[in-house]
Amino acid sequence: MLWLNGGLVAAGQARIDPADRGFTLGDGVFETVMVKQGVPQHIDRHLARLAHGASVLGLSLPYRPDAIAVGIEKVLVATQTGEIDAVVRITLTRGPAPRGLLPQVALQPTMMITSGVLTQSAGPAHAIIARSTRRNERSPTSSIKTLNYIDNIIARQEAKAASADEAILLNTRDCVACATVANVFALIDGTVVTPPVAAGALPGIRRALLLEQGCASEREITEAELKSAREIFLSNSLGLRSVISLDGMPVGDGRPGTIFRDLL
Amino acid sequence: MLWLNGGLVAAGQARIDPADRGFTLGDGVFETVMVKQGVPQHIDRHLARLAHGASVLGLSLPYRPDAIAVGIEKVLVATQTGEIDAVVRITLTRGPAPRGLLPQVALQPTMMITSGVLTQSAGPAHAIIARSTRRNERSPTSSIKTLNYIDNIIARQEAKAASADEAILLNTRDCVACATVANVFALIDGTVVTPPVAAGALPGIRRALLLEQGCASEREITEAELKSAREIFLSNSLGLRSVISLDGMPVGDGRPGTIFRDLL
Repeated sequence: MLWLNGGLVAAGQARIDPADRGFTLGDGVFETVMVKQGVPQHIDRHLARLAHGASVLGLSLPYRPDAIAVGIEKVLVATQTGEIDAVVRITLTRGPAPRGLLPQVALQPTMMITSGVLTQSAGPAHAIIARSTRRNERSPTSSIKTLNYIDNIIARQEAKAASADEAILLNTRDCVACATVANVFALIDGTVVTPPVAAGALPGIRRALLLEQGCASEREITEAELKSAREIFLSNSLGLRSVISLDGMPVGDGRPGTIFRDLL
Repeated sequence: MLWLNGGLVAAGQARIDPADRGFTLGDGVFETVMVKQGVPQHIDRHLARLAHGASVLGLSLPYRPDAIAVGIEKVLVATQTGEIDAVVRITLTRGPAPRGLLPQVALQPTMMITSGVLTQSAGPAHAIIARSTRRNERSPTSSIKTLNYIDNIIARQEAKAASADEAILLNTRDCVACATVANVFALIDGTVVTPPVAAGALPGIRRALLLEQGCASEREITEAELKSAREIFLSNSLGLRSVISLDGMPVGDGRPGTIFRDLL
């Protein structure tokens, strides 16, 4: 079961219009929300980020936050993921449209909520620095969570080909931006730092919490600095993950670091 | 009517799976093909480009070229666009998948063919140089025709806000890349030039034909050079279009240039 444009539908029956701009042009945004024991975590922040991303695309949320919260609750109940740890995805697109980048007709946005069981963390990560592509910090799409994920997919494919399980993207100025599904934190010169949004880092929810709690500060990180970091870890809405090797070389002593363990 | 995964379906009945990665992650490629009097133009080149783009994403075409040609023919007949000038779009995505950038299960790609009436050309273009975003020439996605179109959409929205109708994107090195739905040609120092693919230009089919016919040559174009060009025109698979103003200033004498008129 999933929630589509205001109501529950069986996933096997739910129909996305072939003319939906989410499908034809990747024209939309989404959020991935962790659910603990039926309670969506930091939902206000997620909905604020979704609304901001939508506004950058010239869209507004077609439902009020309380209606979206009810939709999430219905999906959790219908999928029986309300009692366990789960992950909810909220997707918003510009909706079905005729051909052309700027259709001249009014469009009805598509909003979808899906839920899945949260699988166990994959454990410490072996990461690479992606050589196949760069994060475009010159585009507004780097600071909102759009449906345009091909660069991340290509980088992850590169990681897999190198027998690694995550890729860290540099921006077009050769500085660290973020990983394919996470923000990057590094212990450099005794300080935990993370790249600023201006460097192409997605403004992650957990990243914001870590910054607000004083666990890290923002600054540009060069590739050389990352490679000399005593500790590296990743954050996203589903958790923290330690990076124990980078491009095949151990990070620190090759085990999850003390700061990462303290944060856990 | 449209063609979806091997057969004709009424557009109102055609169903894209909500888990299709084209919809969830923009994970796919497409082609826009001009059809003249029922004959798809340069279909071999379009299918070769589609297959190449797919291969960059680690996909292969799920149908042979002759089966795709039959699909196009069926759509043209069913939509009664076979006798007039029409536009066909071929979309290929990685298909429905569970959550995650690299699903561990085998996926069945989605292929769709749609057709529409080719509307009359919009006439000469008033263009801007986009300030809202940059083309990422460091990403392989800039040289294949992916579903990740948000940068183009944002640039076009910027053009519309400036009462213009097309936007030309610079790359991250401040050189001209391409327009939102076309390649850019400019008459500079007596020579017609167009940016190389390495500058972030999509390798357009009509662009390739113009280069092969000796009508233009490739070279980097700076913003200042573009602004001083005596003539600017755009090309895509649906035709050529003259640019008569750039950022509000006339190009040349503010009318379609002689080279553009000769090419027509």
